Amino acid sequence: MIISMRPHATKAEIDYVCERIRDFGYKVHSIEGEERVVIGVVGVGDVTACLESLEATPGVEGAVRISAPYKFVSKEFKKEHTQMRINGLEIGGDEFIVMAGPCSVESEKQIMETAEAVAAAGAKILRGGAYKPRTSPYDFQGMELDGLKLLQKAKNATGLLIITEVMSDRDVDMVADYADIMQIGARNMQNFALLKSLGRCGRPVLLKRGLSATIKELLMSAEYLVAHGNSNVLLCERGIRTFETATRNTCDISAVPVLNELSHLPVILDPSHAVGKRSLVPAISRAAVAVGADGLIVEVHPCPEKAVSDGAQSLTVPQFRAMMLELKPYINLWKESRHKEVAAAV
Amino acid sequence: MIISMRPHATKAEIDYVCERIRDFGYKVHSIEGEERVVIGVVGVGDVTACLESLEATPGVEGAVRISAPYKFVSKEFKKEHTQMRINGLEIGGDEFIVMAGPCSVESEKQIMETAEAVAAAGAKILRGGAYKPRTSPYDFQGMELDGLKLLQKAKNATGLLIITEVMSDRDVDMVADYADIMQIGARNMQNFALLKSLGRCGRPVLLKRGLSATIKELLMSAEYLVAHGNSNVLLCERGIRTFETATRNTCDISAVPVLNELSHLPVILDPSHAVGKRSLVPAISRAAVAVGADGLIVEVHPCPEKAVSDGAQSLTVPQFRAMMLELKPYINLWKESRHKEVAAAV
Amino acid sequence: MIISMRPHATKAEIDYVCERIRDFGYKVHSIEGEERVVIGVVGVGDVTACLESLEATPGVEGAVRISAPYKFVSKEFKKEHTQMRINGLEIGGDEFIVMAGPCSVESEKQIMETAEAVAAAGAKILRGGAYKPRTSPYDFQGMELDGLKLLQKAKNATGLLIITEVMSDRDVDMVADYADIMQIGARNMQNFALLKSLGRCGRPVLLKRGLSATIKELLMSAEYLVAHGNSNVLLCERGIRTFETATRNTCDISAVPVLNELSHLPVILDPSHAVGKRSLVPAISRAAVAVGADGLIVEVHPCPEKAVSDGAQSLTVPQFRAMMLELKPYINLWKESRHKEVAAAV
Amino acid sequence: MIISMRPHATKAEIDYVCERIRDFGYKVHSIEGEERVVIGVVGVGDVTACLESLEATPGVEGAVRISAPYKFVSKEFKKEHTQMRINGLEIGGDEFIVMAGPCSVESEKQIMETAEAVAAAGAKILRGGAYKPRTSPYDFQGMELDGLKLLQKAKNATGLLIITEVMSDRDVDMVADYADIMQIGARNMQNFALLKSLGRCGRPVLLKRGLSATIKELLMSAEYLVAHGNSNVLLCERGIRTFETATRNTCDISAVPVLNELSHLPVILDPSHAVGKRSLVPAISRAAVAVGADGLIVEVHPCPEKAVSDGAQSLTVPQFRAMMLELKPYINLWKESRHKEVAAAV
Repeated sequence: MIISMRPHATKAEIDYVCERIRDFGYKVHSIEGEERVVIGVVGVGDVTACLESLEATPGVEGAVRISAPYKFVSKEFKKEHTQMRINGLEIGGDEFIVMAGPCSVESEKQIMETAEAVAAAGAKILRGGAYKPRTSPYDFQGMELDGLKLLQKAKNATGLLIITEVMSDRDVDMVADYADIMQIGARNMQNFALLKSLGRCGRPVLLKRGLSATIKELLMSAEYLVAHGNSNVLLCERGIRTFETATRNTCDISAVPVLNELSHLPVILDPSHAVGKRSLVPAISRAAVAVGADGLIVEVHPCPEKAVSDGAQSLTVPQFRAMMLELKPYINLWKESRHKEVAAAV
Repeated sequence: MIISMRPHATKAEIDYVCERIRDFGYKVHSIEGEERVVIGVVGVGDVTACLESLEATPGVEGAVRISAPYKFVSKEFKKEHTQMRINGLEIGGDEFIVMAGPCSVESEKQIMETAEAVAAAGAKILRGGAYKPRTSPYDFQGMELDGLKLLQKAKNATGLLIITEVMSDRDVDMVADYADIMQIGARNMQNFALLKSLGRCGRPVLLKRGLSATIKELLMSAEYLVAHGNSNVLLCERGIRTFETATRNTCDISAVPVLNELSHLPVILDPSHAVGKRSLVPAISRAAVAVGADGLIVEVHPCPEKAVSDGAQSLTVPQFRAMMLELKPYINLWKESRHKEVAAAV
Repeated sequence: MIISMRPHATKAEIDYVCERIRDFGYKVHSIEGEERVVIGVVGVGDVTACLESLEATPGVEGAVRISAPYKFVSKEFKKEHTQMRINGLEIGGDEFIVMAGPCSVESEKQIMETAEAVAAAGAKILRGGAYKPRTSPYDFQGMELDGLKLLQKAKNATGLLIITEVMSDRDVDMVADYADIMQIGARNMQNFALLKSLGRCGRPVLLKRGLSATIKELLMSAEYLVAHGNSNVLLCERGIRTFETATRNTCDISAVPVLNELSHLPVILDPSHAVGKRSLVPAISRAAVAVGADGLIVEVHPCPEKAVSDGAQSLTVPQFRAMMLELKPYINLWKESRHKEVAAAV
Repeated sequence: MIISMRPHATKAEIDYVCERIRDFGYKVHSIEGEERVVIGVVGVGDVTACLESLEATPGVEGAVRISAPYKFVSKEFKKEHTQMRINGLEIGGDEFIVMAGPCSVESEKQIMETAEAVAAAGAKILRGGAYKPRTSPYDFQGMELDGLKLLQKAKNATGLLIITEVMSDRDVDMVADYADIMQIGARNMQNFALLKSLGRCGRPVLLKRGLSATIKELLMSAEYLVAHGNSNVLLCERGIRTFETATRNTCDISAVPVLNELSHLPVILDPSHAVGKRSLVPAISRAAVAVGADGLIVEVHPCPEKAVSDGAQSLTVPQFRAMMLELKPYINLWKESRHKEVAAAV
C-alpha cells in the first residue's frame, strides 16, 4: 500500500497515520516529497481493512493498493495455464472448445434438433437456459426442471456436455444434478451468496463478467469460488456496457490477453451477447480465436425468428456450420501457437 | 412497436413480417418511405416476444418498442405520488426522510452510539448492514443474525425504524423478522430470484439502482416486486459507474426528476455511495433535497477511520449533525413546493 | 511519483530504473515489500516524461503520479475562490450569475426578443451561437459574422453581456471583437490549438467539459489557457456521456464540489445540455444552486418548436421566468453560505 | 422519422404536429395505438431540423430518425468497398497495410532508424507526430516543421509513405506538403473547422474515432470530409473510453465489422492506443486481421523507455519484427477471404 498525505498535512496527522499502520501489523516507510509526504506500507495483513481505515483518516488524500487483491486465481500463485478435465473433455489445453445452443430450452424438438446439429458441426458442449434471467417479470422465465431434463436427454443422445445457468443459491443442488458446467450469468457475477454456494457445489463453473464489472472484479468473483472450494473456474468475457449502441454491448476483446497475463484460468468468449447481432458473430469469433481465448460460447437456434429470447443474436444452424468451417484454419494457427507456448514452458 | 425494414427488403420479406405480426395478435400499419418500409404494430399482446422474434426475422433492420415495458410502477398506471406508511412513518408524503447509520453493524457499542446520535440529529430510520456484499472473499462479510439483533436493540432504544440489506432469497424471512425496510443492494438489482422472494415478503423494499443499470431497468426490477405482490417499493439512486474516477461513482442527479416523471414511487438518494468521499456528501445532499428526492440514505460512523468498511465516505457524528442543520432551510423549501404540488393536484 | 516493479523484477532491472530516475534529476526511495519493490521518486523535474519513460522500462509494472499535473488552476496555487470582474459584472463573487439565450442566433427578431425577456427575468449574460458545431455537415452551421453583429445589437439594447462560442483558432480575433466571454464547446475541450489562441486573446473564457473528459483533464485544459496567458477561466459542467439514454447526457453534479475542492476557478452548470429535456431543467437548476455552482447557462427560446437547434431542451420565455422566480429562495440560501465562507476565510 | 405522442396528447396537439410535419414538406401517416398515437413521417427534406422541431413541440414524447443521417459514406450509396491508390500504394484492396513508427518524431537518428527497421519488417507507411496533442501544456508539443522535414527525409531514404497528424486548420497546407495521409486525432474528430479544411486539402485522411464517439458520429465526421470534397477517407478504431482501467482504452473490436456493414470506407485499427500496453499489442493485432480490418497503425520506437511520449505502448523494433512474422499466416487467411468476397461480388 501507498498512502499519500494531503499537501499540508500536519506532523501530528502523519504520526497518527503511521501509528495506525503499525496497529495493523505493517511496517512504515515514509518519504518526504516536495509537496507532501507519501508513506509506503510493507508487510502481510488485512489489506482492505487497513486501506479503508486509512482513507478515512484525517490528513490522508488517498490510499492505493499495490499488490493484487486476488491470490489463488493469479498467475503469481500458479504459472501454468489451468487445464480442466470435465467428463473426458479437456478445457484450457490444446483443443479450442466450442459451446453452442439456444438461449433458452423451449421444447424437446428444439433442443434435440439443435444439439444434433451443433454436435455434427463440431461443438463439444451444449448450452441452453432452463432458468432465465429476464429484465421483465412478464417475459418467459424458463422451463426450469423440465428444461434440465430435456438437456439431459440431448446429452444422452449426442454425447455433448451440458452448460446451463443457475440463478439462485437455492437451485444449486438441483442444477448440479444435470449440468456438467454451472453458468453464473453476468447479472449475478457479484451475487455473493450464489458464488459461495457454487464454491461448494463440486462442479466446474463458467463465470460471466458483469455488464460493468472491471477485469479485477471478475477475478475477485472467481477468487470467491476458489476460496470456497472450487478451483474449476472458466472466465467468460461477454461484452461490457458502454455508451455505444450500435452493438448490444461492447466486446472487450483485450480482456482475453489481459486475463491471460493476470490469471491462469481459461477464458471463454461469448460473441453472441457481446455484439447482440447475428451477422457480426462470425467476425468476432475469428477474433476470439486469434486473440487467444480457450473457447467460444455461441447462441444457435433452429429458427431464430421463433426463439422466445435472443433471436436476433442467434445463428441459424447453417450459419453455425459455415462459421465452424471458416474458423478451422484459425483454430489450426491457434493450436500451433499453443504448442509453441507449451514447448517454451518446458 | 415500430419495425423498420432494411432499405432493399423484398416484398416477400415484408409480407412475412406482417404475417408474423398478425400471428401475435396485432394489427399492422405499413408505411412506405423513400428508402424503406416501416411497419407500425398496434394492439395488446406479448410485446417482448413479438419484438425479439421480429428482430430475428430476415429483412428486418430494427424493432423499437414505443410503450413503456413496465406498468404498475408507471405514472400512467397511478397518477399520484405514492405515500407509504411504515410503522407510523410516512415516506413519499410531506416529510423529507433521512435514513442514516454505519455501512456495517460492527458492535453493540458502535450501533447504539450511532443510532442515538442520528436520531438526535433528526434521522428517522437507522441503516446498517448485517449481511455485507464485499468484492473480496477475504473481507468482513457482516455479523449476520447477531447484527440483526443489534439493530433491533438500537430500534428499541431509539424508536428509529430499521433498514438493512438482504443478499439471498434464502435469508428473506429471517431479515424480514428484524427489518422495517428490506434493502436490495446495487449488485443485486437484477437478482431476479431475490426480487421474487421480496415481492412476497410483506415488507417495504428499498431497491438500489445497479452500477450500470438504466433508469428503465431500475423500473423493470421494481415492476418485478410489484408484480409479485409488493407495492411498497422505494427507488434509490446511488451513483452509476462511468469513466470518471474523481468520485467513487457518478451521482446521476437527473435520475430523480426522470423517475418522478415516469413513476409514482418515492425516490431516495444515497450521496455516500454516489460520491464515495465524505467531504462531498453535504453538497450532494443539498442537491438531493433541491432536486425533489423524497429522502436520503447516508452513511454515518462514530469513528470512520476505524470502520470495517466504507470509512472514507462515512460522515462523523458532528459532521452529520452539522449537515442536518444546514439542510433545514432547503427542506423547508422542499415542503413548500410539495404543498403546492398537492394543492395543484386537488 | 511511485514506481511499482513487477513481483519478480531482477536486481539489474531495479538498479536500471533507479539510475533512470536519477538521470531525470530525482531522488530515489526504494521500499522492499513482501512481493515486490516499490520506488518513491522525490524532487522537481519533468514528471510526465519521467513517468512515461519509466512505464516503458523493463521490470516496471506501473508508475503513478502523486502530485496533481496542473498548477496555476489548483487550490494549492491560490486558496481563495477567483472573482472575475467582466465589464462591470462580477462572477465568482456573491452574485449567482445566470446566462441565458437560444442555442443559435437565428434572426434579429428572435435574438432581440429573447434578450429582452431573459434580461427582464434576471439573467445577466446572453448566450447564443453564431458558429455552431453540428454533428451533420448538412445541418445549419450558424449565422457567423451576422450572428455576432446581432448579439452586439442585443447587448446594446439590453445591457446584457455576451457569451458565444468560437470553434477555430482562425476565428478567435473576430469573435473577441463581439464577445465578453468566449466559449469553448465540449467537443473542443482538447483542441489544443484553440486553447493556445484563447490563452492569448485577452477575453475571459468559459471552458466546457468534454463529453468524456475527466475532471482532471478539464483542469489540464484550463491550465493550457492560464499557461498561455489567460487567467480568466470559467469551468463548465454540461453533462458527460454514459450508458444512460433517458437523458441526453448524465449531469455530473458532483463535479461542482469536486472542482471547488481542487481549483479556485468559478464553476458554471449547463442544465440544458446536461439533461437535454426541457421539463428537467428547473429541477437540475435548483440542484446546481444548492450544490454550490457559481452560475447557470441555460437555453431559452421564444418558440422552441421552431428553433433550428436544441429545441427540445430550450425553455420557453414563460418557463424561464417561472424558473427564475422559483430559484430565488435557493439563491438566497446560496448567498448566505457564500457570506459565511468569506467570513470564515477572513 | 417516427413521432410518438404522449399517452394523453390532445387532438389539437396531434393536429398541430401533423401540420408542422407538412410544413417541412413531408407526408403524414398516423397510427392510433392502444395507448398513444404514433406518426410516421415520409418524404425528403431537412430531417434534423424537422426532428428537433418536433421533439420540442407540446404533446410529443419522442422523435426517432429511421434513415441513416449520413449518405456518401454509406453502403447504400456505394456497395463496393473503397480501394484507394495513394502514391502507388493501394489501401482497401487485397493487401493488408501496416503503418508503423514512433508516437513523436524526436530526432533524425530516431526517425531514420525506425523507418528503416519498420520498412524492413514489412510496413508500408511511416507514422510519426510532428504536432502532438498533449493533455498538459508543459509536455513536449512536437518538433513541428522540423519534424515534417525529418519525415520527408525518412520517406526519401526508405520509400515509405508518410502519415502524420494535423491539429489546426491553420496548419493544413503546410502538413499537406509533407504528408501522404493526413491524420485527424481522436480529440479532433468533431473539430468541424478542421474537418472542413481537410475536406478541401486534396490528400487522403485517416480519421480517428473520438474517445467517446459513437460509430454513427464517426461516420458523420467522415461525411463532413466527403461533403467538403474529400472522398479518400480511412476510418480508424483506436479504443473508446469506458469504466475499465486495466487497459488505456477499450478496443471496440466490433466496430470493424459494424463499419464494414454500414460503410464502404476502409477501416484501420490502432492497437497501440486501444490498449496502451506493449505486451497486448500483438494479440490485438492478430484479432484486427481476423476481424477483417484493412490495416493496422502501430507504435514502434527504437528505445521505448527513452521515448518522449507513449513509450509504454510502443513496440521495440525486435518486437515489431516478431509480430509481423506472427501475423503472416493470419494475413494469408485474410487475403483468401478477400478474394472470395471479390469473387462473390463479381
